[in-house]
Amino acid sequence: MKYSFTNDYSEGAHPNILEALVRSNLNQENGYGYDTHTKNTIKYIQEAVQDKNASVYLLSGGTQTNLIAISSFLRPYEACIAAHTGHIAVHETGAIEATGHKIYTVHSDDGKLRCSDIENTLNMHHDEHMVAPKLVYISNPTELGTVYTKQELEALRNICDTHDLILYCDGARLGTVICQAQFDLTLSDMYRLTDAFFIGGTKNGALLGEILVIRNNTLKKGMQYNIKQRGALLAKGRVLGIQFEELFRDGLYVHLAKNAMRHARVLSIGFHAFGYKFLVAPQTNQIFPIIENELIEVLQNNFDFYIWEKVNATHSAIRLVTSWATTDDAVTALIDAIEKYNPDQYGAPPKDDAPGIAYTDKV
Amino acid sequence: MKYSFTNDYSEGAHPNILEALVRSNLNQENGYGYDTHTKNTIKYIQEAVQDKNASVYLLSGGTQTNLIAISSFLRPYEACIAAHTGHIAVHETGAIEATGHKIYTVHSDDGKLRCSDIENTLNMHHDEHMVAPKLVYISNPTELGTVYTKQELEALRNICDTHDLILYCDGARLGTVICQAQFDLTLSDMYRLTDAFFIGGTKNGALLGEILVIRNNTLKKGMQYNIKQRGALLAKGRVLGIQFEELFRDGLYVHLAKNAMRHARVLSIGFHAFGYKFLVAPQTNQIFPIIENELIEVLQNNFDFYIWEKVNATHSAIRLVTSWATTDDAVTALIDAIEKYNPDQYGAPPKDDAPGIAYTDKV
Amino acid sequence: MKYSFTNDYSEGAHPNILEALVRSNLNQENGYGYDTHTKNTIKYIQEAVQDKNASVYLLSGGTQTNLIAISSFLRPYEACIAAHTGHIAVHETGAIEATGHKIYTVHSDDGKLRCSDIENTLNMHHDEHMVAPKLVYISNPTELGTVYTKQELEALRNICDTHDLILYCDGARLGTVICQAQFDLTLSDMYRLTDAFFIGGTKNGALLGEILVIRNNTLKKGMQYNIKQRGALLAKGRVLGIQFEELFRDGLYVHLAKNAMRHARVLSIGFHAFGYKFLVAPQTNQIFPIIENELIEVLQNNFDFYIWEKVNATHSAIRLVTSWATTDDAVTALIDAIEKYNPDQYGAPPKDDAPGIAYTDKV
Amino acid sequence: MKYSFTNDYSEGAHPNILEALVRSNLNQENGYGYDTHTKNTIKYIQEAVQDKNASVYLLSGGTQTNLIAISSFLRPYEACIAAHTGHIAVHETGAIEATGHKIYTVHSDDGKLRCSDIENTLNMHHDEHMVAPKLVYISNPTELGTVYTKQELEALRNICDTHDLILYCDGARLGTVICQAQFDLTLSDMYRLTDAFFIGGTKNGALLGEILVIRNNTLKKGMQYNIKQRGALLAKGRVLGIQFEELFRDGLYVHLAKNAMRHARVLSIGFHAFGYKFLVAPQTNQIFPIIENELIEVLQNNFDFYIWEKVNATHSAIRLVTSWATTDDAVTALIDAIEKYNPDQYGAPPKDDAPGIAYTDKV
Repeated sequence: MKYSFTNDYSEGAHPNILEALVRSNLNQENGYGYDTHTKNTIKYIQEAVQDKNASVYLLSGGTQTNLIAISSFLRPYEACIAAHTGHIAVHETGAIEATGHKIYTVHSDDGKLRCSDIENTLNMHHDEHMVAPKLVYISNPTELGTVYTKQELEALRNICDTHDLILYCDGARLGTVICQAQFDLTLSDMYRLTDAFFIGGTKNGALLGEILVIRNNTLKKGMQYNIKQRGALLAKGRVLGIQFEELFRDGLYVHLAKNAMRHARVLSIGFHAFGYKFLVAPQTNQIFPIIENELIEVLQNNFDFYIWEKVNATHSAIRLVTSWATTDDAVTALIDAIEKYNPDQYGAPPKDDAPGIAYTDKV
Repeated sequence: MKYSFTNDYSEGAHPNILEALVRSNLNQENGYGYDTHTKNTIKYIQEAVQDKNASVYLLSGGTQTNLIAISSFLRPYEACIAAHTGHIAVHETGAIEATGHKIYTVHSDDGKLRCSDIENTLNMHHDEHMVAPKLVYISNPTELGTVYTKQELEALRNICDTHDLILYCDGARLGTVICQAQFDLTLSDMYRLTDAFFIGGTKNGALLGEILVIRNNTLKKGMQYNIKQRGALLAKGRVLGIQFEELFRDGLYVHLAKNAMRHARVLSIGFHAFGYKFLVAPQTNQIFPIIENELIEVLQNNFDFYIWEKVNATHSAIRLVTSWATTDDAVTALIDAIEKYNPDQYGAPPKDDAPGIAYTDKV
Repeated sequence: MKYSFTNDYSEGAHPNILEALVRSNLNQENGYGYDTHTKNTIKYIQEAVQDKNASVYLLSGGTQTNLIAISSFLRPYEACIAAHTGHIAVHETGAIEATGHKIYTVHSDDGKLRCSDIENTLNMHHDEHMVAPKLVYISNPTELGTVYTKQELEALRNICDTHDLILYCDGARLGTVICQAQFDLTLSDMYRLTDAFFIGGTKNGALLGEILVIRNNTLKKGMQYNIKQRGALLAKGRVLGIQFEELFRDGLYVHLAKNAMRHARVLSIGFHAFGYKFLVAPQTNQIFPIIENELIEVLQNNFDFYIWEKVNATHSAIRLVTSWATTDDAVTALIDAIEKYNPDQYGAPPKDDAPGIAYTDKV
Repeated sequence: MKYSFTNDYSEGAHPNILEALVRSNLNQENGYGYDTHTKNTIKYIQEAVQDKNASVYLLSGGTQTNLIAISSFLRPYEACIAAHTGHIAVHETGAIEATGHKIYTVHSDDGKLRCSDIENTLNMHHDEHMVAPKLVYISNPTELGTVYTKQELEALRNICDTHDLILYCDGARLGTVICQAQFDLTLSDMYRLTDAFFIGGTKNGALLGEILVIRNNTLKKGMQYNIKQRGALLAKGRVLGIQFEELFRDGLYVHLAKNAMRHARVLSIGFHAFGYKFLVAPQTNQIFPIIENELIEVLQNNFDFYIWEKVNATHSAIRLVTSWATTDDAVTALIDAIEKYNPDQYGAPPKDDAPGIAYTDKV
């Protein structure tokens, strides 16, 4: 059996969640999201974002959440602005377009959108022969593991206010941001700075589930109808309610994300300690070290991971993902393998001419 | 606490299913339906329908399954034919229309479509100013709990072949049909007689999940893409795989449906024994006894159920639903309540002039 | 050559319109509806509806207008209410559903919706499992040639206000209503009583073209974008502008409709004079006399028309349509043919037991 | 009054077309494309493409044609590949996405797609998490006035065959290609090398109208239904039929395009003669000379045209469009203005260091 760093959804759920499912199993509950567990979750989230009027919906997956939110928020001729690496732009099989909306993409090396990207996009779309850009889609962290800081989010909020745009954040891995003190970013900040965002459960300990949170009152109408119409209203809504109740009752959600981050950090430091650089600076639970193709082959004997992209003739970036379920053994084995490939190299600084970005603890 | 006969999704999952989730929880599995449990489920279903080439997909809910299947099967101008009581026509918030397709409905007293309905519909749609009816949507059992017999299905199959139509069956409660020897209808029959159908898990012991089975080769292409595009591809596909593996490994699926039917039958006989008739002849786990409005008020003190429709000035039909989780206590308590309201009436035959249909064991 | 009563779009345009196209042909005009002729048309319509803020758009056809207006007015889960005979429900190949919206139909013998139909529909749609009825679609005149009176429209307006519904009117043949003094219904009334309506040109003397007029401010946003997105923005918008400028500058539109009505009235009186009844009382330029099947065969030798429906073993309703281009010769020849089939019957009153509705001049 | 080089749709129709409309005006014709003129047009086109089985449909505009064709050709999860300058990608307000399909764009300096673009796109789309690229959209000429040669089209045909892709060509200005002997490209070539293409009428002398021609048998089914469903089936289909009958009966279509090209060529040579270069080599009736910003201001006094893009601090590219209706006077006046701005410069070769591409007669 190999150790897997392929993704953060290879295991089932955190044991507490399964226990909660077992514990409540024979209680009779209302269907379709009117169960007591969903109600409790909604209350926990409203408390976390400090607004009793926050609209909170429990859904099954990220693509589902994105397509329901975006198709509900936009009028037919309105479009999204996204980084070219954005999940909706690349890895959702045209789910947004299938609801009728164009995604206008902007090239981004680190997966983040800048205010200038938004302004340029607006400048290019000036009349009824082109779509009307209306919704700014960001992911935090991004698909490359990078993080929008509070200042960056505030700048985006500003520009969205100026141009009457909707700021929507895909938070499939949001836990790995809010669990890090250095970012000083809370659910309440995410709520205040976006019009709507979602909090990912699938990749942070749940069997399935994402929480859509809507702040902007003009976007709230009819959401339950849209959820049903898109086939996303579970008869046993309790399945989502129970899981998130468990994750948000006593801080389990942040605790699990911290675990994922602890492992990611050890790995980052490990690669750094042997002189490796990264495709983008490691900030969350997806890291992209650039290593020798030869080393890749060695690692593949004992570890599963994605080869992300070729960097030069001899080196490629790989993607390693940690999660709440990553074990110390797995991480240690990986560091050991690097050391074995680089005997006596511990502490060697990254070479200046090596491609990539050096790791710094404070990113 | 009241006893609930409101629906068949008030509880969680059958305990065996939860145990299976716990047992397999920390095994690392591939995502997106490529896990070993999903593969096993596919194998079980292919064996049940006696075709190794059957296409089998695990999805989360009935509306989701219907909209994915139908929007994949039809070209833009093609439409569905359905009974006016059909789930897609009434209770899916326009999910099919949201994918672009019209549903042409035919009035039906018992929830079933007849061959003549299909022929009449075809006769009325003769040129490009009207949609082209292409898919016949049936539910077995229907939304009124009635059952298409094998002969009826064969007749529908015939007419669909004659007119090059797709026969698609919503099997949200299919277990309650295939578990009854009197209907002599197997998954293999359902497969042979339809182009595609689904096997409901949510209402028969699973937390969530339906199995879409496609026989017609021309309808198979690209289904995995459509599933992803509609937001229905779970990252942890194992959640569905494990549940259905449990339900179909040793016959648990049929066993649970039999339990639901045992309770439904006792209730039907109970009402009958005190002279009550039914809106439609009870055949599956939804029964619609016609009772005094006064009795309804009495029952509401201790039982939850839907009042389905007013039948005359003094009587209404109620809907009672049983499931794998219905208890003997609940059923006994209900029969007792009826007896108490009708002292010394046991064995009284239904009055000839009472509205409704008398129960017969052999329906 | 047979005389045709098949429809009101068998000829080209009224000669004045062609002359206007020729006259203006080499003037250079802005594209996409910004030409001077379209501007003039907009001004004429705003004057006619007595509101300078009326939004006015020139489109090519009725189905196009319906689908653009309705898909722009509704949110994804909202639906239309229509008579089962409504054009959008039957004869637009699912165009509305193709934009994602369900049409809930109500049976109507005369093509008209009643207030009670709307209330019943609302009562049946009570939660997020069903679409939310939001737009009331009517046609004036209806597809059966019947007319909504001012009182009926006021009642519909009232109920729509009460329930926050959109009242939208398809006016493909609106000219034949507003040209009749007895109805006392002006474009200004249509504007005041609906949220939006369209004025048909194709069936009243134009080569092509319908005018969409929107009163409700909340429905105006982004319409030009929707028009472009649905492929309805003509590069040479002047083609529509010039035609409608001609139709509305000096009353040609009403003049042409009066001509159509003059012929329809003579035909109605003619059938009546020989004792025939009608499927629905003749009110506009579509009339549905019920005649002997034998007479139908006779007429088919010299006239083109639709056989609408079988009424009994010996009689059927036919549909006759007149237009601005109908000739006196055609009408006279038809009356002569009826007389020849019914010698010495002139002035015979309709038989009491004959199926159908007798013609009355004041309908 | 200024001379306009803004576009090729500022005037009405060629006079012959208007005469044909007048001539046939009172003949009664079948509606919805079953008139004799449409039938004749279909015959002319089938002869031109040398295939009696070619499917031919007359539509109103380019966006309409693109959206109907593409949404009919593709299954829900299939996508288009287009140059980033492609009309469907930029100037159709998301019309294709509104039918549910993603457009994957490839950067192109000259508006053309290369085979390598297609291969790269296919390589990047490998599983069900991404759309399946299926249709290659090209425009001939492109939106930048450049032309796909026969060899280039053959190479695209080849690669599409290899990968089972649909090759679809937007021919809004196709006349300006097929009218040039140097390209040796006929309607028959366009037919043979694509699966479907359209022949633009609006920009070559018609009031409105484009002809969709489909070769690939698997793409033909149900097109008339799709046309009706998208609101594109004109009741008076004769309006399109008469115009195209006139354009294709005796070669008027090519004659008009030659006129547009004669003017474009004179302008190109004129700019060249005074030492100007171009953004892309002039090949059709859209030319993009790069001139001094100062000259732009001078020209704007007497001419209308678009400023396309800034090229450097002192120069910008402008877009000049000629048409069948461009006058010798307009062209002469423009050349005179250039000469006046550049006295004694006639015959000066373009400076080597000037930005842009020099004109060569043989492109």
